[in-house]
Amino acid sequence: MDKTDDGFFRPVSGFDLPRYAGVPTFMRLPLVPFDHPRFAEVQVGLIGAPWDGGTTNRPGPRHAPRQLRDLSTMIRAANGVTRVRPFDLVNCADLGDVGPNPADLMDSLARMEAFYARVRAAGIVPLTAGGDHLCSLPILRALAKDRPLGMIHFDSHTDLFHSYFGGTMYTHGTPFRRAVEEGLLDPKRVCMIGIRGPAYDFEDRDFADAVGIRVIPIEEFHDRGPVDVMAEARAIAGDGETYVSYDIDFIDPAFAPGTGTPEIGGPNAWQALQVVRLLRGVNIVGADMVEVSPPFDPTGGTAFLGVTVMFELLCVMAERLAAQD
Amino acid sequence: MDKTDDGFFRPVSGFDLPRYAGVPTFMRLPLVPFDHPRFAEVQVGLIGAPWDGGTTNRPGPRHAPRQLRDLSTMIRAANGVTRVRPFDLVNCADLGDVGPNPADLMDSLARMEAFYARVRAAGIVPLTAGGDHLCSLPILRALAKDRPLGMIHFDSHTDLFHSYFGGTMYTHGTPFRRAVEEGLLDPKRVCMIGIRGPAYDFEDRDFADAVGIRVIPIEEFHDRGPVDVMAEARAIAGDGETYVSYDIDFIDPAFAPGTGTPEIGGPNAWQALQVVRLLRGVNIVGADMVEVSPPFDPTGGTAFLGVTVMFELLCVMAERLAAQD
Amino acid sequence: MDKTDDGFFRPVSGFDLPRYAGVPTFMRLPLVPFDHPRFAEVQVGLIGAPWDGGTTNRPGPRHAPRQLRDLSTMIRAANGVTRVRPFDLVNCADLGDVGPNPADLMDSLARMEAFYARVRAAGIVPLTAGGDHLCSLPILRALAKDRPLGMIHFDSHTDLFHSYFGGTMYTHGTPFRRAVEEGLLDPKRVCMIGIRGPAYDFEDRDFADAVGIRVIPIEEFHDRGPVDVMAEARAIAGDGETYVSYDIDFIDPAFAPGTGTPEIGGPNAWQALQVVRLLRGVNIVGADMVEVSPPFDPTGGTAFLGVTVMFELLCVMAERLAAQD
Amino acid sequence: MDKTDDGFFRPVSGFDLPRYAGVPTFMRLPLVPFDHPRFAEVQVGLIGAPWDGGTTNRPGPRHAPRQLRDLSTMIRAANGVTRVRPFDLVNCADLGDVGPNPADLMDSLARMEAFYARVRAAGIVPLTAGGDHLCSLPILRALAKDRPLGMIHFDSHTDLFHSYFGGTMYTHGTPFRRAVEEGLLDPKRVCMIGIRGPAYDFEDRDFADAVGIRVIPIEEFHDRGPVDVMAEARAIAGDGETYVSYDIDFIDPAFAPGTGTPEIGGPNAWQALQVVRLLRGVNIVGADMVEVSPPFDPTGGTAFLGVTVMFELLCVMAERLAAQD
Amino acid sequence: MDKTDDGFFRPVSGFDLPRYAGVPTFMRLPLVPFDHPRFAEVQVGLIGAPWDGGTTNRPGPRHAPRQLRDLSTMIRAANGVTRVRPFDLVNCADLGDVGPNPADLMDSLARMEAFYARVRAAGIVPLTAGGDHLCSLPILRALAKDRPLGMIHFDSHTDLFHSYFGGTMYTHGTPFRRAVEEGLLDPKRVCMIGIRGPAYDFEDRDFADAVGIRVIPIEEFHDRGPVDVMAEARAIAGDGETYVSYDIDFIDPAFAPGTGTPEIGGPNAWQALQVVRLLRGVNIVGADMVEVSPPFDPTGGTAFLGVTVMFELLCVMAERLAAQD
Amino acid sequence: MDKTDDGFFRPVSGFDLPRYAGVPTFMRLPLVPFDHPRFAEVQVGLIGAPWDGGTTNRPGPRHAPRQLRDLSTMIRAANGVTRVRPFDLVNCADLGDVGPNPADLMDSLARMEAFYARVRAAGIVPLTAGGDHLCSLPILRALAKDRPLGMIHFDSHTDLFHSYFGGTMYTHGTPFRRAVEEGLLDPKRVCMIGIRGPAYDFEDRDFADAVGIRVIPIEEFHDRGPVDVMAEARAIAGDGETYVSYDIDFIDPAFAPGTGTPEIGGPNAWQALQVVRLLRGVNIVGADMVEVSPPFDPTGGTAFLGVTVMFELLCVMAERLAAQD
Repeated sequence: MDKTDDGFFRPVSGFDLPRYAGVPTFMRLPLVPFDHPRFAEVQVGLIGAPWDGGTTNRPGPRHAPRQLRDLSTMIRAANGVTRVRPFDLVNCADLGDVGPNPADLMDSLARMEAFYARVRAAGIVPLTAGGDHLCSLPILRALAKDRPLGMIHFDSHTDLFHSYFGGTMYTHGTPFRRAVEEGLLDPKRVCMIGIRGPAYDFEDRDFADAVGIRVIPIEEFHDRGPVDVMAEARAIAGDGETYVSYDIDFIDPAFAPGTGTPEIGGPNAWQALQVVRLLRGVNIVGADMVEVSPPFDPTGGTAFLGVTVMFELLCVMAERLAAQD
Repeated sequence: MDKTDDGFFRPVSGFDLPRYAGVPTFMRLPLVPFDHPRFAEVQVGLIGAPWDGGTTNRPGPRHAPRQLRDLSTMIRAANGVTRVRPFDLVNCADLGDVGPNPADLMDSLARMEAFYARVRAAGIVPLTAGGDHLCSLPILRALAKDRPLGMIHFDSHTDLFHSYFGGTMYTHGTPFRRAVEEGLLDPKRVCMIGIRGPAYDFEDRDFADAVGIRVIPIEEFHDRGPVDVMAEARAIAGDGETYVSYDIDFIDPAFAPGTGTPEIGGPNAWQALQVVRLLRGVNIVGADMVEVSPPFDPTGGTAFLGVTVMFELLCVMAERLAAQD
Repeated sequence: MDKTDDGFFRPVSGFDLPRYAGVPTFMRLPLVPFDHPRFAEVQVGLIGAPWDGGTTNRPGPRHAPRQLRDLSTMIRAANGVTRVRPFDLVNCADLGDVGPNPADLMDSLARMEAFYARVRAAGIVPLTAGGDHLCSLPILRALAKDRPLGMIHFDSHTDLFHSYFGGTMYTHGTPFRRAVEEGLLDPKRVCMIGIRGPAYDFEDRDFADAVGIRVIPIEEFHDRGPVDVMAEARAIAGDGETYVSYDIDFIDPAFAPGTGTPEIGGPNAWQALQVVRLLRGVNIVGADMVEVSPPFDPTGGTAFLGVTVMFELLCVMAERLAAQD
Repeated sequence: MDKTDDGFFRPVSGFDLPRYAGVPTFMRLPLVPFDHPRFAEVQVGLIGAPWDGGTTNRPGPRHAPRQLRDLSTMIRAANGVTRVRPFDLVNCADLGDVGPNPADLMDSLARMEAFYARVRAAGIVPLTAGGDHLCSLPILRALAKDRPLGMIHFDSHTDLFHSYFGGTMYTHGTPFRRAVEEGLLDPKRVCMIGIRGPAYDFEDRDFADAVGIRVIPIEEFHDRGPVDVMAEARAIAGDGETYVSYDIDFIDPAFAPGTGTPEIGGPNAWQALQVVRLLRGVNIVGADMVEVSPPFDPTGGTAFLGVTVMFELLCVMAERLAAQD
Repeated sequence: MDKTDDGFFRPVSGFDLPRYAGVPTFMRLPLVPFDHPRFAEVQVGLIGAPWDGGTTNRPGPRHAPRQLRDLSTMIRAANGVTRVRPFDLVNCADLGDVGPNPADLMDSLARMEAFYARVRAAGIVPLTAGGDHLCSLPILRALAKDRPLGMIHFDSHTDLFHSYFGGTMYTHGTPFRRAVEEGLLDPKRVCMIGIRGPAYDFEDRDFADAVGIRVIPIEEFHDRGPVDVMAEARAIAGDGETYVSYDIDFIDPAFAPGTGTPEIGGPNAWQALQVVRLLRGVNIVGADMVEVSPPFDPTGGTAFLGVTVMFELLCVMAERLAAQD
Repeated sequence: MDKTDDGFFRPVSGFDLPRYAGVPTFMRLPLVPFDHPRFAEVQVGLIGAPWDGGTTNRPGPRHAPRQLRDLSTMIRAANGVTRVRPFDLVNCADLGDVGPNPADLMDSLARMEAFYARVRAAGIVPLTAGGDHLCSLPILRALAKDRPLGMIHFDSHTDLFHSYFGGTMYTHGTPFRRAVEEGLLDPKRVCMIGIRGPAYDFEDRDFADAVGIRVIPIEEFHDRGPVDVMAEARAIAGDGETYVSYDIDFIDPAFAPGTGTPEIGGPNAWQALQVVRLLRGVNIVGADMVEVSPPFDPTGGTAFLGVTVMFELLCVMAERLAAQD
């Protein structure tokens, strides 16, 4: 699929319609659900996953897609630093929300996997706005059905725990344990960055060590800096297909208070963007921004930071996709 | 135009997709802008007017259409009291937002009038979510171009002042003075309900008396009660074409804090709905809900009350329209 | 079990320790979990049910027990209107929270039923702070295991729906449908008060009619007033064992904004207390206050109203229990 | 002193300068401290008492004068119901704030008494914006130095307690006990309206009964209504000099959340104004609005209600003063 | 004009009157409007410009002067780092607010220009608290009437756009384009620091390049650091008369959320002060702090940061002015 | 006293009971007041000091212990960086709150001193959650009764002023002046870090210089960095008994807005933790976290940062205590 030229896949400009006006879609892109006549032309699909059924602590990410869409109307068309214009490079659209079942966890996982299988079948690269981190599991089930992916994972938690509450296997603290077990991730090509905070135990870290996942804790991140750390991350991911999972709690809570399980002492907002720009060249087959929690984000600042990160993700994804064509 | 039966003009049900999910349109109706293939089938159009250029005090209503759409996803399909099902009676759609020019008042008035002229030309009855109260003026210019309308007006202010700041003629305190001067309203068929609050002077009230507008101040409203007052209002409006303008500051600020110029001591929320149900039978050719100001409504409660009033308005409008067919 | 006299079961006075000080238990009562040496002496147990797994819309009630305990430190020892002193009449204690499994709905239902079975076995009358309304189901399963109860139910919704999302049977919109099906409630002795709001359909109301549940909608409540309505409710409940379920969304959202599914136009705060005082004499074997949602209650005002209702409930429960002794 | 005619004592109009502009004084009146050349012409002085040293629970009223001044810029010049124009009748001015000592209670009481003694010596009738309710005591010490006053007191608490924390005599729960003991109030001419809420004990009520203070609890207020209750209050106060003390927690917390010790079930906002209008004719020698607590009033709605009550107080005070001249 | 010594132009000390007390003027300085007897003695005038008529996105800066005054009462008398005591060096006063016309953009521009012409005529150096960034244009029209000024401009946007909405020339995104066109600024002596964020296009940057304005984007700022960047800025401004314009959105939104068009990734608060201290020696003839938006600043933290920046500006201005005398 | 092994002194795990559930004690530890049977086994006691009677500006810290307990339920069992497990090393417990007298400053000081004398007599090392900074004085009176202590003090203010308001000796700006005067601190072993902000005068700094207290102002902190600064601080404290006082306003207000007297430009959250980790090896005999003010911390982020600092303090205290055994 090539980039089309008729302007359909362009965002509305704030020079034409004020940014606070209009029905809010992701980045003011056209809304193109599965049954839309131009669905087949989409190259990168922005998708909302309004579900937080895996949340063991403070809920809220189910509301994130709506708030992220709202704040995403503040995003414009060109990257101020890299000058990439993603909407000039690939056809981007808002595919709408995957419909969860808030009262049935397993049903929600199935609904999400089916949705992303359809996205993948259409050859669309998904950029997801979660939802809690358990959302990444059904996405990976759809995208990595036939071979494991690498992953670059920004977070304050590894989400590699075995289970909670005496045996509950599916929570937002376990998705990547399941993904490794299910062969969806190649642990040797997985790098987790920013891990920090008090712990109950280090069972997750022991698992990472055992299977070969590289964990870069926050003290190492602060010591080495983003450029050095990201060079290592790119090397770990290599040229293979890679998923990028970005938990908003990677960022320090002063910059991103709107999340359910914050941990003190993370990167600042500039670093939060910088690490994404340093993904340039990675072969990204999907990405997500998860754990934004509007009830804990009264000013919307966390969502605005979240969508700015999403725009940076979109820029590196679009550049790579355009180069592939 | 008859009501269609193919389900297109139905809202999404919360039993199918959770109410917090999906791109928020008014009442989860389809978004049908002017260039949409099914535009010609619309009978009642819900329209956002994100503009507050006439606001002389605390701004914010420009943000109201977005917040009202968000909260309107809490609305369902049938009226719990009257059991009216408006979406079964007429084709309703979200027509999107009229695009204002936030830095040019006169240009905004012109853009709005042109938009509503097009709506009227299509035979669509508009239900507007403002915006500040000056929005009502260009709407009336479009709807009442060829003959004056009656009006039932819920508000704590008459908005009948001559001018502000030494001669400024267009503010949210002057729209109905202009509308009477321009022959858009028949003052004998205008009734204003809920007027209250300290005043600079009573020049507005003197004007009302002079031209024959009936003003029912709040103390009279509290004494007589909604049923009696609304019987008089219906009699004043008569059988002729009537506009309904509902300023959210009609309601007491404890129920509707999110507005720029609140006045203490208004009706409660139940009365706020009741007065609309008592419009049953009025020949409504257009209606608006104005002055909702999200920056002063941190919990969204005002917007939720606002859209509930809009749903009540829609029910009486749909019933009347269906009866006319 | 008689009331003890050694002061153990008394709340801390604000004349001794300021009300903002100290670890917050319900109404500053002693914390007496199952393994506490004085557990067997408890007559009325205040219990937190921090679970909202049945919530289909905006989550949050899992946080309510903590916020309700916090605000409950504002409650004092004697009822200002009835002059009842519940802590003089019966031994009251905070039994702590039932521990849910936030990622497993069925496990949570089982945990809650087991907890309340233990409470019942100890002869303790439970007064629960939810949690969403699905919490009432496992409580009823424990309390009504051997015979159906009557119920007086304050709410804006009947919570009598059959299922959601294509067959999900357990949500906060279905508990009483299940309870009737399971024989936990005698529908002829059930009265639901305050029902209102737009509806998808009236399937719930049809079910109520079919099984003989009396539904008093809000327009009837406003017309007849609390005294008359509650006389009917008491008559319906009769002398038999009765559960009282109080959903905070019974009250108008201006008074109780902190809830996930508010409906416009409910009773005011005075009426909210008055209906409880009018329960005097009812044979209450358990009661709950549900659907308080702290994320939507930034000022804590909803929780304060909720605990004041709980205090009124406690007064009528204590009076009846003391009279029975 | 007669009303002057040169416009100096007039508020700035919102038709000239927007209401959000300008340094905020009470009701946009001139700031006339003791050393101002026109101080001697002032007839009614609006005074801030930014002190909450007597608060035993949640602090905050020290911030009230500033927030009340801010919101008071929303007040205009004429009463919408009674059409009284207080600024036409008497010379009103903002006298500034009395300077407290936040770390020394007894010093603060002395500073306040000295300030009000000076106000009284100048023949100025003070209308105070507190501050917590202990502020009323030094005001009464200054105003009632030579003979006891009557008092009409709107509140949810009697503030007649003997002491707190084992003997602390000066708190915001004790001012009127002290005032009666010191002979500042004639208990036979004191009426307290709106008393409610749970109590530790009824020692305050017993004291009221013993000395002859008339307490009208909230259930009686709701039963009889404002007109009847206020007729009794006026009769109790009689023709003698009377102080009016208005605690914002008289009003239901949904209307006035911004206060430290709210009690559920009070009057609504309309009734809150109505009771003041029903003071017409009372010989008011001073009045206060206390216990507004900005930290608990994020939207400013409580302060706006507070200053609207102050404006109603000013109207009845000015009318009476003008009639006396 | 020399510094006076009678204490009139000193701020009130928090050791005398608590900082939350008193009518809030800028930095607790005397309020000295044009008609005040001591107006002629003022050397630096702090002025509020409560106007946001040029705002194309989220409004609010019209409320900034009031909130900035409020928070400015937290400022004390001496700079903790440089130990400069500005109020010892020059006569500072609060000149009050320039009165805008919120419903007429061109009238507001004219009113502001006239006000500042009067300030300039009195030989007063203005330090303005906006308002949105369009306020800088009429200020420059007054200050640079007879020769162009240099400018050091802290911002995330250049505000150099040609027009919006199809030809609207006056918005908060265009003031410096107009100022260059009108000859008010010498582009060779203009330096813009901190520019960032997604863009619609780079037309503004192309204009800057064409006329010789130096733009230092944020990535360069982060790379070089404040000391190096400010050395260049001082060199660009040179010894000539220079205006300093400080848009609060220069600072990262975590530190300054209260603004209408935030951009992620700016300087932190320490750097925000540091760049001002590095203006030492620049020949500043006027300065402003703009785009603070209280509706988006619920805690007041942005305003507090804004007034702290203003205090740093005042210190460098006072030092230079005192040295000139 | 040795560490016990029966699990009593362990926190509840979030893998067993969700972190939002249960009555909130500090770090989910057991509540062990003086009369508890296991009181004698406690080694480190976490204590709330809900008092802000010394606050001269914006009040609120009296509410901090409750909010800190609430947020402390987010803390887990092991330090993510140092891997210290404090609850494995020493017996930790929540000792409850010291009961102040909010209306009597001197009585509160006496109550607090008596409480801590009892703690000290039991051989318990106290870790206090204030309260305002005046709380540190009675704690020092109890802990340093018989010999002066060293102190490492993180703050933006020295709190070394002589008096306020014309001679008031006890405020939150004077505790360490009093402590030095009373011989509770050895000034040669006191180091104050992070001092900044505008000042009225530098009398406090002059006093520090005179008695030999080392003050490291913020500009020096930013220049040298935490590692270097803390090496000096450790050297100053030496091996002797040392108190650590941590005022939350040490941290930049973007990270810690919830405090009464913030100062712009402090350390970020990572540095805020780092300085505590760099206390390793200091002979800490007591520590506090003061000036957290919930009314200014609507999201709870400040409290969460505060308790994370407390956990870091606990880790270094426990390590040292365990090493001593």
